[in-house]
Amino acid sequence: MSSAKLNRRQQFYFMLDKLKVSVFKANLDLVHEGLVIHTWGNASGRDKESGLIVIKPSGVSYKSMKPEDMVVLDPEGKVVEGKFKPSTDAPTHLLLYKTYKSIGGVVHTHSTYATSWAQAGKDIPAFGTTHADHFYGEVPCTRKLTAKEVDSDYEVNTGKVIIERLDKSDPLVVPSVLVNCHGPFSWGFDAEEAVYNAVALEEIARMAFYTVTLGHTEPVDKYLLNKHFRRKHGKDAYYGQKKNK
Amino acid sequence: MSSAKLNRRQQFYFMLDKLKVSVFKANLDLVHEGLVIHTWGNASGRDKESGLIVIKPSGVSYKSMKPEDMVVLDPEGKVVEGKFKPSTDAPTHLLLYKTYKSIGGVVHTHSTYATSWAQAGKDIPAFGTTHADHFYGEVPCTRKLTAKEVDSDYEVNTGKVIIERLDKSDPLVVPSVLVNCHGPFSWGFDAEEAVYNAVALEEIARMAFYTVTLGHTEPVDKYLLNKHFRRKHGKDAYYGQKKNK
Amino acid sequence: MSSAKLNRRQQFYFMLDKLKVSVFKANLDLVHEGLVIHTWGNASGRDKESGLIVIKPSGVSYKSMKPEDMVVLDPEGKVVEGKFKPSTDAPTHLLLYKTYKSIGGVVHTHSTYATSWAQAGKDIPAFGTTHADHFYGEVPCTRKLTAKEVDSDYEVNTGKVIIERLDKSDPLVVPSVLVNCHGPFSWGFDAEEAVYNAVALEEIARMAFYTVTLGHTEPVDKYLLNKHFRRKHGKDAYYGQKKNK
Amino acid sequence: MSSAKLNRRQQFYFMLDKLKVSVFKANLDLVHEGLVIHTWGNASGRDKESGLIVIKPSGVSYKSMKPEDMVVLDPEGKVVEGKFKPSTDAPTHLLLYKTYKSIGGVVHTHSTYATSWAQAGKDIPAFGTTHADHFYGEVPCTRKLTAKEVDSDYEVNTGKVIIERLDKSDPLVVPSVLVNCHGPFSWGFDAEEAVYNAVALEEIARMAFYTVTLGHTEPVDKYLLNKHFRRKHGKDAYYGQKKNK
Repeated sequence: MSSAKLNRRQQFYFMLDKLKVSVFKANLDLVHEGLVIHTWGNASGRDKESGLIVIKPSGVSYKSMKPEDMVVLDPEGKVVEGKFKPSTDAPTHLLLYKTYKSIGGVVHTHSTYATSWAQAGKDIPAFGTTHADHFYGEVPCTRKLTAKEVDSDYEVNTGKVIIERLDKSDPLVVPSVLVNCHGPFSWGFDAEEAVYNAVALEEIARMAFYTVTLGHTEPVDKYLLNKHFRRKHGKDAYYGQKKNK
Repeated sequence: MSSAKLNRRQQFYFMLDKLKVSVFKANLDLVHEGLVIHTWGNASGRDKESGLIVIKPSGVSYKSMKPEDMVVLDPEGKVVEGKFKPSTDAPTHLLLYKTYKSIGGVVHTHSTYATSWAQAGKDIPAFGTTHADHFYGEVPCTRKLTAKEVDSDYEVNTGKVIIERLDKSDPLVVPSVLVNCHGPFSWGFDAEEAVYNAVALEEIARMAFYTVTLGHTEPVDKYLLNKHFRRKHGKDAYYGQKKNK
Repeated sequence: MSSAKLNRRQQFYFMLDKLKVSVFKANLDLVHEGLVIHTWGNASGRDKESGLIVIKPSGVSYKSMKPEDMVVLDPEGKVVEGKFKPSTDAPTHLLLYKTYKSIGGVVHTHSTYATSWAQAGKDIPAFGTTHADHFYGEVPCTRKLTAKEVDSDYEVNTGKVIIERLDKSDPLVVPSVLVNCHGPFSWGFDAEEAVYNAVALEEIARMAFYTVTLGHTEPVDKYLLNKHFRRKHGKDAYYGQKKNK
Repeated sequence: MSSAKLNRRQQFYFMLDKLKVSVFKANLDLVHEGLVIHTWGNASGRDKESGLIVIKPSGVSYKSMKPEDMVVLDPEGKVVEGKFKPSTDAPTHLLLYKTYKSIGGVVHTHSTYATSWAQAGKDIPAFGTTHADHFYGEVPCTRKLTAKEVDSDYEVNTGKVIIERLDKSDPLVVPSVLVNCHGPFSWGFDAEEAVYNAVALEEIARMAFYTVTLGHTEPVDKYLLNKHFRRKHGKDAYYGQKKNK
C-alpha cells in the first residue's frame, strides 16, 4: 500500500516509524564508525512537519537496542511515546533544534581525537583542504561552563554555550562544536548527515593532532579555505553530481 | 528444570558452572576488546555467598581455553577444583577480594595506553567528562615496589600497593589502579563490570595521552567532575533507566 | 570467445570494460586499505594505446558505485562515455598523464599520515630502508598555491605544482608527491600499482611521524638509500622473481 | 599411516612438508598480526636434524603464496628445492642460524613501531614488566652499516652487525634486534615462536613510544626486570603450566 493511500493518522505513524528506524540506524552507525564505545553517544532526528524529535533511550546497550526503543519527544521535551527515559543529553539536542530550524539531526559522541581537543579546550584549526571541505573555518570549542551552569540545568546550559560559541555562524556551515572538557556535538540536515559530519570531524581532529605534533600551527590560507568549502557547498559548488547542495 | 528444584549440592555446582562461564567469557572479552594479546591478562570472579574465586589458568592460550579450564580457589588461594595452575597473578586478585567486600570481579591487562601511563609512573588526570563518568578523580598510579617487596611475595605485595594507593577510596568509585612500571588492575560488581571498567580505562588513558601531547595538563574543574560522576553513580544518578545504580 | 576474434570496435569496448573494472577496483581498494573515508579520494587509469582515461565519478558513494559508473575522458578531458560528471580532480589527473608518458594510473587520497605531513607543508625524509625500497629520496611536498592559482584553474594548477616539484625526477622513481595543505597524489604503471604506492606512502608517512616524534631528524645515508632502491628497481634489481622490474 | 612406518627418505620429505607448512603459516601470521603489508617481511624455519632451512620466496604476494612455494636451502644457502628464488634477506637468516644453534625460526618485518625505533637508531628501553616478561634488558639497536658493508655482501653484513650487537647475550634471552635505519629481526625456538616474539616486540615498541612521549625515560629497576624475566624463563620460572620453559 503506497503511503499516499494512508489517512492522516496513518501517515503520521508511518513517518514516525521511518524516523525511529533512521535514528536507530544513526545510533548504531556511531558504533560501527568507531566513534562510540559502551553507551558514550547518542543520536536524534526531527520530523520537520510535526516538530517531533526521536532520540536514543538513556544508557541502553547498543547490542540489545531496537528501533521501537527510540523515545519520541515533543519540542519541549515531553515524552510523547516510548517506554524508556530519553538520553540525559536530550535537553541539549532540544535546544539546538529549537534554535536552528535548518537542522534535522544531532549526534553527540566522545570520539577519541575530537574529545582530546575538547579536553585540551582548543579550537581545531583548519589545517588543510580536508577540513575546508567540511567546516568553514576552525571547529570551535566552547568556553567552560561555570559552576552555576553545571549545577542547575546542566544539559540546557551545554546547548547554550554551543549556541553562544557558534554566534552568527550558519550551523550547516560549521556543523560541529566541541564542548570544553566534554566532547563534540555534530548536526546536519538529518540524522544520517549528522553522523556523516561526526565521522569527518573525528578524522579531521586526528589529522590536526598529527599536524601540530609535527610542529605546524599555522592555519590554511583563507583563499584555499574558501575555494574548497565552495567547491562542495553553496550556489557555485561543482563537487558531486548536483549543481547545488 | 528450574534451579529452585535443585538440592543444595546441585545448586552449588550450578552456581560454580555459571561463574566459570562468566569468568571464561570475561577473559575472552579482554581479547575481543583489544586489551590483551598473547596471554597478557587475566580475569576472575567471586561467588559472594561461598566466597569461592574462579580465575584464568596460567599461560593457557585464549584460542584453546574452555570454561571448564577455569581454576576454582578458596579465599586463601587453595585450588578447590581445576586441573591447571591458576594465573600467577592470583595472589593479587585474592588480596583485593579479601580487602574489598563490594567487588565481585577483577581483571588485569597490559592494555597499551593504560600500561604506558603505568610505565611513566603517572596518575591519569581527570581531563574531561568521559573520565568523570567512570572515575571519581584521577586514575591513581601506585608507588614502585621495593627490591624486597619484589623478591618475596611479589604478587601479594602488588595487591598491597594497590590498596595502599586507594587508601580510603571506595573501590567502586575508583575502579582501576595503575601498578607502577607494570599495568592496570580494574574491578567491579562482577567480572563483566570489571571488563567494562577496563575498556573505559583504556579509552580514557588514550584520550589523556593525546590531551597532554596537545600541551594541556590542567584537570577538569571539581564541580564538573562531581556533576558527571553523580549523573551516573549514587542516589541522585539520573543516567540510564534505573534511578540508582 | 577469445579477444583475438573480436573486430577492432569490439576490441576497443573490451579494453574499455577491462579498464573500467580495474579503475573501479582501484577506487574500492583505497577504501579497503583504509586510505579513504566518505568520498575523499579518487583513482584513474589510462589506456596507453588510445590515450583514453577512466576515472571515478564525482561524489558518488563507494557503497553504491558500479564499474559502469566510471567516466571515460579523452586526454583533453572531454567526456567520451558515462552518465556521471567525472571527479572534480580530473584536471589534475589529466595533466599528470599528459606530462608523464610512463604512468598508467593515478590516485589521490586524504590518507591520515600523508595528509598530516602535507598539512605541515613538509617533505617526508627518507628515514630508513622501508622508505628507500619505494621512494628514491624524500617524498616531496609542493609549495603552496598562490591565491591566483587557487581562484582560477585550481585543479590544473594543482597538477602544475606537482610537476614543478618533481622537476627532472622520473615519476616512477618518486611515485608520490604531497600537495601542500592538501594531501598526496600517487601514480604508477597502472591503477593497481598507483594504489600499491599510495599504501606504501601512508605507512612510510606513519613511521616517519613516529621517528621524528622520537627526536630523530637525520635522513638515511645516501649509500643505504641507493642500495635499497636498486635492490628493487632498475637493471641491477635482485628483489622478487624477475631480474628487472 | 603413522610417520614411524615411513622409510628414511619418506620421513625426510614428511619432515620437509611439515616445515614448509609451518614456515608458510608463519609468513601469513605476520600479515594477520598486522606486522607486514605488501611483501615487507619474511619468515624461515630450520630442521635441526638435517640443518635445512625453509624460507619465503622473494617478492611473492601473500595472497597467492602456497606452502609448496617455500624455498629449501642448505646451510650455505644453496637452493635444495623450490621453483622460486629465496627471500633477498636469506643470507641474514642463514648467518643467524649458523651462529646460534639454539634457534629454529627467524622472522624479519618492517612493523610500524619497532621500525620507527630502528629508524631513530635507538635501543628500546625496558620500561616495564611487559617488556621484562619477554626481553632481558633493552631491545638492542645495531650500529649503522658502513658504505663498504652496504655495497658488498649487504645481507651477510646485516647478520654480522646483529651478532656483533648481541655480543655475548643468549639469543633466546634477547630474541629481537633492531637493525639501524632498517627494522627488526626476531627469532625463537621455531618459526611460530619467532612470530610470537615479533608480535610482543611490536607491542612493546608501541608502549615504549608512548612512555617516552609522556616524558619518561628511566628504565625499570633491575630487580623488577630480573623478577619478571625469571617468572617466565629459566629454572625458577613459575608462569604457565610447566615448571621450566
